[in-house]
Amino acid sequence: MELLEQRILKDGQVFPGNILKVDSFLNHQIDVDLIAEMGKEIKKIYNGCGVNKILTIEASGIGIACITAQFFSCPVLFAKKMKTKNIAASVYKTQVRSFTHGTEYDVIVSKDFIGEGDKVLIVDDFLAEGNALLGLIDLCRQAGAEVVGCAIAIEKGFQEGRNRVEAKGVRVESLAIVESMSDNTVTFRKQ
Amino acid sequence: MELLEQRILKDGQVFPGNILKVDSFLNHQIDVDLIAEMGKEIKKIYNGCGVNKILTIEASGIGIACITAQFFSCPVLFAKKMKTKNIAASVYKTQVRSFTHGTEYDVIVSKDFIGEGDKVLIVDDFLAEGNALLGLIDLCRQAGAEVVGCAIAIEKGFQEGRNRVEAKGVRVESLAIVESMSDNTVTFRKQ
Repeated sequence: MELLEQRILKDGQVFPGNILKVDSFLNHQIDVDLIAEMGKEIKKIYNGCGVNKILTIEASGIGIACITAQFFSCPVLFAKKMKTKNIAASVYKTQVRSFTHGTEYDVIVSKDFIGEGDKVLIVDDFLAEGNALLGLIDLCRQAGAEVVGCAIAIEKGFQEGRNRVEAKGVRVESLAIVESMSDNTVTFRKQ
Repeated sequence: MELLEQRILKDGQVFPGNILKVDSFLNHQIDVDLIAEMGKEIKKIYNGCGVNKILTIEASGIGIACITAQFFSCPVLFAKKMKTKNIAASVYKTQVRSFTHGTEYDVIVSKDFIGEGDKVLIVDDFLAEGNALLGLIDLCRQAGAEVVGCAIAIEKGFQEGRNRVEAKGVRVESLAIVESMSDNTVTFRKQ
């Protein structure tokens, strides 16, 4: 998606360890006009697929998921990193390893909000090693819901995420795929 | 706001300890059409106030903040509960006590995204003791930004949050104010 790639080139920052910081418009400060254009693009890609629920994971996926859901006229469900005592006892649970933080954590969704008959689009801001997506796919499959596919803002195309998700039989669509990064520039895969 | 109050009566659940669970439409599953109506209402309330940035706190404030920001044509900034190593060194930091979890945690925003001249609307899903709002107000004031006011989805009117926030000289507007809760019913304050 040209608009997103241009924005990454303009405002993204590359740090050692293959870290691409886009917190001026995507995951700390959020440019909601840009996100709306991304949501429209995701709707084009998955139009006619019968999506009736968008699933994401807290925290930085929530903004893009909510704005995208407006184009699908469907609710968002965000998986929670387990810590609250307010959550219902009746949850699906999986474990996710954080590439960023190097830790493992439990992720849950309430059984009340996902189940057989649901056609779920998984939306997230980043795809790197794919751990978050694999966890969300696992939650859907525990619930008997169908995963229509994944829609990602920025994929790190040089990491293993896509292969690992596609190996689960799940479609992956990314609005921008970073082929390589260096101190000075970001190169995108042609789509 | 009638639409929100009716939805709370229909789908909210009251649990011991003054817990109002609205996770079927507000803070786990998110009804984005309802949130859009709430965003429109918030825009009506704060129209003409010069809001150029919406500030919230992860995670459950992000959805309502992003959808509301579309009506203000301004970006969202969400304060992060401190744990990431990706965040810039240059942050404003404050401490918030969680009513829900009974713990204290650091909350940060990057100095790059808030400063003098900003007119900030703080948006969140709940107001109870007001600790999150007080933290967000503190971050704004550290940054030299003006706090235009707070817009809250659901206020627990029987707790001290409003008084504590208003004591800081900050306007508070809530779309629904719960006057009292019991096992069977929720009573709202007339506005």
